[in-house]
Amino acid sequence: MTDTVEIVEVGPRDGWQGIGPFIPTPTKIDFLRRLVGAGLRRIEIGSFVSASALPQMRDTPELLAACKEIPDIDPQVLVPSERRGREAAEAGAPRLGFVLSVTESHNRNNVRRSPAESAEDYARLLAAIPPAVMIRLNLATAFDCPFEGRVAADRTLALLDRLVPVRPEAEICLCDTTGRADPAQVGDLFRAARARFPQARTWAFHAHDTYGLGLANVHAAHGAGVRIFDASFAGLGGCPFAPGATGNVATEDLAWMFGRMGIATGIDLAALIPVARDGAALPGGLPGGRVRDALSANPESCSAAGLT
Amino acid sequence: MTDTVEIVEVGPRDGWQGIGPFIPTPTKIDFLRRLVGAGLRRIEIGSFVSASALPQMRDTPELLAACKEIPDIDPQVLVPSERRGREAAEAGAPRLGFVLSVTESHNRNNVRRSPAESAEDYARLLAAIPPAVMIRLNLATAFDCPFEGRVAADRTLALLDRLVPVRPEAEICLCDTTGRADPAQVGDLFRAARARFPQARTWAFHAHDTYGLGLANVHAAHGAGVRIFDASFAGLGGCPFAPGATGNVATEDLAWMFGRMGIATGIDLAALIPVARDGAALPGGLPGGRVRDALSANPESCSAAGLT
Repeated sequence: MTDTVEIVEVGPRDGWQGIGPFIPTPTKIDFLRRLVGAGLRRIEIGSFVSASALPQMRDTPELLAACKEIPDIDPQVLVPSERRGREAAEAGAPRLGFVLSVTESHNRNNVRRSPAESAEDYARLLAAIPPAVMIRLNLATAFDCPFEGRVAADRTLALLDRLVPVRPEAEICLCDTTGRADPAQVGDLFRAARARFPQARTWAFHAHDTYGLGLANVHAAHGAGVRIFDASFAGLGGCPFAPGATGNVATEDLAWMFGRMGIATGIDLAALIPVARDGAALPGGLPGGRVRDALSANPESCSAAGLT
Repeated sequence: MTDTVEIVEVGPRDGWQGIGPFIPTPTKIDFLRRLVGAGLRRIEIGSFVSASALPQMRDTPELLAACKEIPDIDPQVLVPSERRGREAAEAGAPRLGFVLSVTESHNRNNVRRSPAESAEDYARLLAAIPPAVMIRLNLATAFDCPFEGRVAADRTLALLDRLVPVRPEAEICLCDTTGRADPAQVGDLFRAARARFPQARTWAFHAHDTYGLGLANVHAAHGAGVRIFDASFAGLGGCPFAPGATGNVATEDLAWMFGRMGIATGIDLAALIPVARDGAALPGGLPGGRVRDALSANPESCSAAGLT
């Protein structure tokens, strides 16, 4: 049996949200089609948030509608509150990513409420929408906070004590918002969380590569049993509310690593590289990652990796 | 007891050897002093090789002499043959790194002999020099070869069958020359080698970051018991004989990762960053790594990491 992992493409949300110049909606739709063509399935296409705070995300409802015409896409949208979550569900989103932060300062900075209040909001949202809507729960600052520094595992686990019972079958994603988690911390927290919440069966990891540790942290999470990983094509991204948190781990870097390890991702790296190259060239984008340039310089490495 | 690792600074050899414009010898000596000032001790200061092949290395004897005036430096020089090793020992080198490749094509490309012939050369060198000269054995293409692709673990282990008995107490460094090793492969090979050669007590890992896997591979090697790691300040480097093999793992990235993991390196990251920044600015250099830019943009992260 081949080992597999799922890579969730978050570039259209996390990669684009911080880009100033508005990317025309047809350009976005074309990128979504090409990403699906490269083998990606679940794509975080945008978020339901304040258009004044994140104007780049204002066409998320149109993108959601356009996804109905893209075979095989599994669109996910990010929502930070009950109100936005209801809007997204009413707009037909089949899968919501609800985000809240472990740390008080980061959550207040993002949504002007405490983590406990956001947890109550999460419960209200789940009670209000149809049960068929799939739920991903994103815990920002699960490892480290731009305002408070390193986050003790107990704080993240204590917030999960409130959140997990709300819907145990929700997928839970722990996010390294600042990129300052280290592989020992990542492995330890996932092992502790999986042991404490055996009823929560699906765990995911959202890595940033700001300090070069993105792949090391992903590998550590994989070693702790995680099989779902967020990544952004071209390494685009960063949280506009977390100073310095540029640089999601690049989808092509993850696909390369898992490919070399003999673990299937379903991604066609040769098809993804040109999409990533075009993504890196978007005006205002902050690209990252190494594989795009390395493979562009050495296309024969694609065959060396058994990936073409 | 605090866990510790040793980081061997190889920038002055592996980082500079591919730089075209000659770096003036006094500039090199100044960098060596500043690297020692940042807490590095063992530094690969250059190599005894053909001055026509690698003209940048032609002042290695002068650097070796200058090291006598640098307190606390532990200089290492790279040699590819018995003849060059004898020259280095006669010039007063206290520690030699003998390099040969696991793969026939790479070794022939480097030194125009087979790996078996280089192994005999290694034995002749050790018989010819004083026993007090410390020996590091570097196996290039131990994981992957630019000409032959992925190297099976059995090939590397078979070459070690010849080499280890020559001097079991030599430090053995397995080198990811192309940067195409993956963390599973790195962990597996080190575990296999340590199990097969219990008499060889000191293992080291030389990582390249060409495909972004440098830190993930270092972390995997650490998990397999390795405690000595090569790195290049500013991520300078690459092997001029391995097409595309730019990008040693950056010393500052390793120091950051181990610092976040609570593992002591002896490196003062705040002192290293300005040296790395100047190294990255050397004309003709190919810098890499993420921490230098991340910390330059966010100096407060130094305190967040407990590193300043």
